[in-house]
Amino acid sequence: MTHFVVLSGGLGGARFLTGLRRAAREGLLPGQHGAAAEPRLTAIVNTADDLWLHGLKICPDLDTVMYSLGDGIDPDRGWGRREESWQAAEELAAYGVTGTWFGLGDRDLATHLVRTQMLHSGFGLSDVTAALCARWQPGVTILPMSDDRVETHIAIADADSPSGQRVVHFQEYWVRLRAEMAARAVAFIGVEDATPAPGVLEAIADADVIFVPPSNPVVSIGPILAVPGIRTALGAARAPIVGLSPIIAGDHVRGMARQLLPSIGVEVTAAGVGAHYGARANGGLLDGWLVDTQDVSAVSQLAQIGLKSASVPLLMTSPDATVSMVLSALELVS
Amino acid sequence: MTHFVVLSGGLGGARFLTGLRRAAREGLLPGQHGAAAEPRLTAIVNTADDLWLHGLKICPDLDTVMYSLGDGIDPDRGWGRREESWQAAEELAAYGVTGTWFGLGDRDLATHLVRTQMLHSGFGLSDVTAALCARWQPGVTILPMSDDRVETHIAIADADSPSGQRVVHFQEYWVRLRAEMAARAVAFIGVEDATPAPGVLEAIADADVIFVPPSNPVVSIGPILAVPGIRTALGAARAPIVGLSPIIAGDHVRGMARQLLPSIGVEVTAAGVGAHYGARANGGLLDGWLVDTQDVSAVSQLAQIGLKSASVPLLMTSPDATVSMVLSALELVS
Repeated sequence: MTHFVVLSGGLGGARFLTGLRRAAREGLLPGQHGAAAEPRLTAIVNTADDLWLHGLKICPDLDTVMYSLGDGIDPDRGWGRREESWQAAEELAAYGVTGTWFGLGDRDLATHLVRTQMLHSGFGLSDVTAALCARWQPGVTILPMSDDRVETHIAIADADSPSGQRVVHFQEYWVRLRAEMAARAVAFIGVEDATPAPGVLEAIADADVIFVPPSNPVVSIGPILAVPGIRTALGAARAPIVGLSPIIAGDHVRGMARQLLPSIGVEVTAAGVGAHYGARANGGLLDGWLVDTQDVSAVSQLAQIGLKSASVPLLMTSPDATVSMVLSALELVS
Repeated sequence: MTHFVVLSGGLGGARFLTGLRRAAREGLLPGQHGAAAEPRLTAIVNTADDLWLHGLKICPDLDTVMYSLGDGIDPDRGWGRREESWQAAEELAAYGVTGTWFGLGDRDLATHLVRTQMLHSGFGLSDVTAALCARWQPGVTILPMSDDRVETHIAIADADSPSGQRVVHFQEYWVRLRAEMAARAVAFIGVEDATPAPGVLEAIADADVIFVPPSNPVVSIGPILAVPGIRTALGAARAPIVGLSPIIAGDHVRGMARQLLPSIGVEVTAAGVGAHYGARANGGLLDGWLVDTQDVSAVSQLAQIGLKSASVPLLMTSPDATVSMVLSALELVS
């Protein structure tokens, strides 16, 4: 059985996975010979944007992937549950507690309650994720990158602080502060002591193709690669590793990569991110890198550093468009 | 400042307290000479029907009292919040978790989240209750009977069990099983090791009048009296202690006292409950006992055991009716 593995953040990864699953269900992937040969799909999901809030463990990327693949996501917002209500959140605000800038819907709350109670009972996040997925039937094995607590924090300028800056949780930077200021530095707190979740290294070793979807290179893919053991496993994988640029024409399609890439010294271009990941042949991550047709000049630039590249339309405007991207990526490394 | 103290369960106590507060605000209580002399009101509330569910600490009686006095209660149900929704509860059921028979509204959830997080942060239940009341402004100092965990469990017949019975949490007996079977025994798990919450013994000692409202004698008032130290403090109180019968014409007005009283050997009558509490002069609890006009025969019966009694209308059908009951109770022990 062919095994496709995807490193995933939230919305970008979720949309890519939805396209990949669709391609699998329509028998469009290599190695498929009818429904009996439906391939195995695994998502290794960033957990560094997780947070504890109101005593609840919230895993935004895991939930976005699970809700998206389980058809429970709000398609307009791109996060949280459809047909959502906000009564509990209103009440929390009425009690004057902190953290009410984070959108916590009534339906969504149930997921966090089940997760938190299971964690307090001693289950690992990967066990919890499997239990939640028993309901959502995503058609993809969803693995957290790690069962250990890792949290992305962002340093921003703060004239009121003696140091001239302060450090906020990624969710505070993104949701509360709307990423309106440049990130000065990004830290994945706890990642040095984290280990890959059960199944992660096995999936990487077993994969036939590994995708790096158009997720944020700094705060979505970055933490996954920073978990000790994962980068080495990717380097040793027998599968080709193919990425898709989240930067089109010098800006992110969605999110805040533009504000974050400079903090790690990466140019906000498709070529810049490709070079950041690097060619596997030269100690980098990738065997192939898809850029948008608007970034065709990146193809020759990246050839100079040994990274095979091609340009195709990269906007996930529809499931069909995403299926095309999946097939183009596969073709690039076939 | 005159100080009125009420031992309270949920709905019955909450309605009585609402009437008492109304009487206070209208200047109808003894010792009042204009608004400047507004009396102090304290409720000592049963916490033995508390439960942990979905990882949350839920205190039904405390919440019923707080929501009632804070005008947040659903007046028709008599528990939970008005304008409530049930989205999180639907989702919990969809996840297949246990305990979804307990009604957990979206607005109500916020209270439990704030409480649970405060408890996990090391605050006592009385601190938490004061914090929650900062929002609700009940006009009554609401004290849990104890900060320690005490839980009422009920033994019921179970033909499938080797012992012929099983033991369920009070909420399971009342909410899930609807108290449809007789209780064989009632146990307040943990009460032996519980201590009165901060302020409880002080309120009893300081009180000018202590009320036992028409709450359930077994599972509402019973646990309060069972907390070591409270019964002794009541016996030593300088205040008269006056109770109101929850049994009218041989049945409870609301709740499940009829199913529970036989388990502690008490007749389901106004006289039976009065005798159960007993006359203070003879080592019992009460200086006075109000029964309904339908139970006028109880007055002479109770006189024989030294308990001063009177019959008045005891249905809390309106705030005015409750004010009359409060004034009748005061008159009985004045």
